[in-house]
Parts: sequence; structure tokens; C-alpha cells
Amino acid sequence: MRNLKVIIAYKGSAYHGFQRQENAVAIQNIIENKLSVITNNSVEIFGCSRTDTGVHANEYCFSFNTEHTIPCENIVRALNTHLPKDIAVKSCEEAPENFHARYSCTAKEYEYLILNSKIRSPFYYDLALFYPHKLDFDKINEAASYFVGTHDFKSFCNVGSDKIKTIRTIEHSYFVKENDFVKYVVKADGFLYNMIRIIVGTIINVNEGRFSVDEIPTIIEKKDRAFAGKTAVATGLYLNKVFYEN
Amino acid sequence: MRNLKVIIAYKGSAYHGFQRQENAVAIQNIIENKLSVITNNSVEIFGCSRTDTGVHANEYCFSFNTEHTIPCENIVRALNTHLPKDIAVKSCEEAPENFHARYSCTAKEYEYLILNSKIRSPFYYDLALFYPHKLDFDKINEAASYFVGTHDFKSFCNVGSDKIKTIRTIEHSYFVKENDFVKYVVKADGFLYNMIRIIVGTIINVNEGRFSVDEIPTIIEKKDRAFAGKTAVATGLYLNKVFYEN
Repeated sequence: MRNLKVIIAYKGSAYHGFQRQENAVAIQNIIENKLSVITNNSVEIFGCSRTDTGVHANEYCFSFNTEHTIPCENIVRALNTHLPKDIAVKSCEEAPENFHARYSCTAKEYEYLILNSKIRSPFYYDLALFYPHKLDFDKINEAASYFVGTHDFKSFCNVGSDKIKTIRTIEHSYFVKENDFVKYVVKADGFLYNMIRIIVGTIINVNEGRFSVDEIPTIIEKKDRAFAGKTAVATGLYLNKVFYEN
Repeated sequence: MRNLKVIIAYKGSAYHGFQRQENAVAIQNIIENKLSVITNNSVEIFGCSRTDTGVHANEYCFSFNTEHTIPCENIVRALNTHLPKDIAVKSCEEAPENFHARYSCTAKEYEYLILNSKIRSPFYYDLALFYPHKLDFDKINEAASYFVGTHDFKSFCNVGSDKIKTIRTIEHSYFVKENDFVKYVVKADGFLYNMIRIIVGTIINVNEGRFSVDEIPTIIEKKDRAFAGKTAVATGLYLNKVFYEN
């Protein structure tokens, strides 16, 4: 049995996230349908992460097993021909038998894109958070830095999560500026449900004076969602990179 | 009677161009409807250009007359609140009585965006031409340079044009490279129907060896559409800037 590792990118606007849904279109449904046709057999794929409705991916990994002998490059070509325009396959390769896109994943990096201009953009309405107010760049970067390290992030986890363990290690957490855009970049060994969106929402609340910067450690310590800020919209969030051993 | 000059940007994918249509949704229809509500009177707007279905604008100008005393900044705010997300208003100002977005326009600059990568992008399927083949950058830039100057561009005009005069002056015409993207930038006193899309299609034909670079002047001299290359897709085209005297 072959075990294949596939990297895709997608614009999430039209989908109810990655994970298979019964009554809504998720990216997993679409890919499994196409792969089942290509390999002539019912295929189940394992994604590296759920992603919320409207969340995008610059790099997303899934793995699946198949007995079919079709070469990897033909899978890439066939999927890119038959998948919708908002899902693209970047690569496909043979993986070790025990590789699993979710369980083998050692870290993920996300980006959260903010359009910080007075006028909204007709090109980014579903690709960024539109924030027309002044952003204090030093202040939000200082706020972002408090998240680095190993913490219990229970305050930054919305209900609906199935995660019992809420301790995560954030490797980096910072903002960068690119013309009218401000981008939040965060890498961790894993994330809780809505964790990044609550972090961004809380930092925006800091920018607006609802919290002071040095309240962030206290909010973390409280281990209670009620103490953190709002959940920022899904449209700005991108899974940017997935990391595996070796 | 006030004469107002308005600058907008739009993503054209969902519209049958700018110009008002009877049986399809054009951007003009939508804006006139909103302005008629805002000013409490039937409004007709004059656009600086028709644009084809699927063509975008980073900067598009229209003008209109109104007796209403609503301040310009309120028009911007009201339109940005009520227009669809793929149309944004950048500015509105009082213009001289004789200003007309189309007839006062002295020049326009367009950009044509090409995604030149092996893998298509899920974010640019309706915002660029996807061209996965090798582009000979020096060659296409040399081809582009032949269009500069005053020429009869009849070879670069599709049927359906109402333009009798086919002489235009191109001020600049070149390609720039930005990561995976190659952008064609062209400025002229005016353009014929599909002119830029035929220029780009012809240059792509040069890249692929259908024409040699130095055949471009001959194609121009022929004054016959049959001698030029294909018409590139509308999705890559952006009206980038409009120029007026003063």
C-alpha cells in the first residue's frame, strides 16, 4: 500500500473549512471525490488541520493510502485539471508508511492579513480583515511578543473545541508591514480552536485601548475565554506552512 | 448644478463591464441605482471608459451632475456602505462644469497581470492570466517596445468597435517582473476595442515563436486584425490610472 503526501493551496471563501461535512461543501469532500475517480477506488484523506469556514491555505498537507500505481506527477496534473479553481495542488510525493499529515506534523505557521487603509479594497474583501483605523505598530508587536513560549492558551480557545490539552508552545509571534497591509505571523507546535483569531482580536482590542499591552500575560494566566478579546474574522487567516520531521 | 468627479476601484469578475446593460449587471447600473437613492433623484453617470466583462480597475473615474447639496465625503461614505464589496469608492470631488470623465480624459494606463508559475494560484484565478510556460523576458520586453509611439492600431482592434479613428499614441509599453508575476504596463491617449488584450496575446505568440520579435512593426503596418495574435483573457487586465489636464 502506498502512502502519499500531498501539498495544496486553497482560497477558503467558498468552503465550510477543510474537514468533511455531511450537509455542506468542505475541501476534503471535493478532493476525496476527485481522488476516488482518479484512483478508481474510494479514497479517504487525512488533513493536517481542520480550518474554519473562510480560512485560506498557502500550504496545506494531507496524506492518503492507495493501491493504485499512478505516478505522483500524474496525480498532481489530474487534480489540478479537475479541482475547482480555488484549490491548487503544489506537490505529491511518496511518504513513509507511518507518515500521517496530522499526527506527524511538528509545527504550523499561520499568517493573518490585515488591510490597514482608509478605503476598503475590492480585491481583498474575502482575503483580509479590513481595518481602517490607526494601528500602533510598536504596541501590537509588543502585545504579540507576550504569546511566545509555552503557555496554557485556554483563554484563547472558543467553545466547540475537542482539545483537552490546552498547553501549546509558540515559537514566533510578530507583525510585519507591507504597504497597506499588516501581517501577523505565528508559528507553534499546534493551535486551539479559533486560537489565532482570538489572539488577533485581543491584540486589536489592545490597539483600541480596551486592554493595556501588559495585561496580556494576565489574560493568559486567567485560563478563561471570557477574559480575552473578540474573535477576528476568518477571512484574514492563512495556513502558511506545515512542518514535519526531517 | 454640481458636477462631481468620482474615483473608484473594482474587481470586474462579477460584472458585464462598466457600461450600463439592459439584460446584464454592469457596474454603471449598480452605481447609478445607489446614487439615485442617495441624491433622491435619477442619476446618470459618465464613465471614463467601457471595460470588458471581467476587466478590473485600480482607478476608474466617472462624473455626474446633481442638484443635491450632500457633501462629497458623505457620498464616498454612503457609496462605500451600500455598494457591493467588489466596488470601492476612493474619492469624490467638485469638478469644473465642463469636466467629463470620458471626454476630458487625456490618457489612461492599464496593467495586464500574468501569473508565470508552474502551479496555478487559488487566489488569482480571476485576477491574472495563468501562464505556466517559460517567458523570455528580454524578448517580450523588446516586442512591447515596438508599440511605443503613434501608430494606426487597426490590427489590434477586434470587430464590434465603434471607433472609426484607429490611430493612437502609446507613451510607454513594457513588462516588469515581481516574484511569480509578470506585469505588462501600457499608457496611451486612448485604446481601441480589445487593443491591450490583442497586444498581450500577440506578444505571447512572439514568446512561443509564432511570430518573431521584428515582425511586430509589419503586423502594425498591415492594419488588419487577421495578422495579429490571439486576444488574451480579460481576467488579467486592470485600468490602473486615468489622466486629466491640470
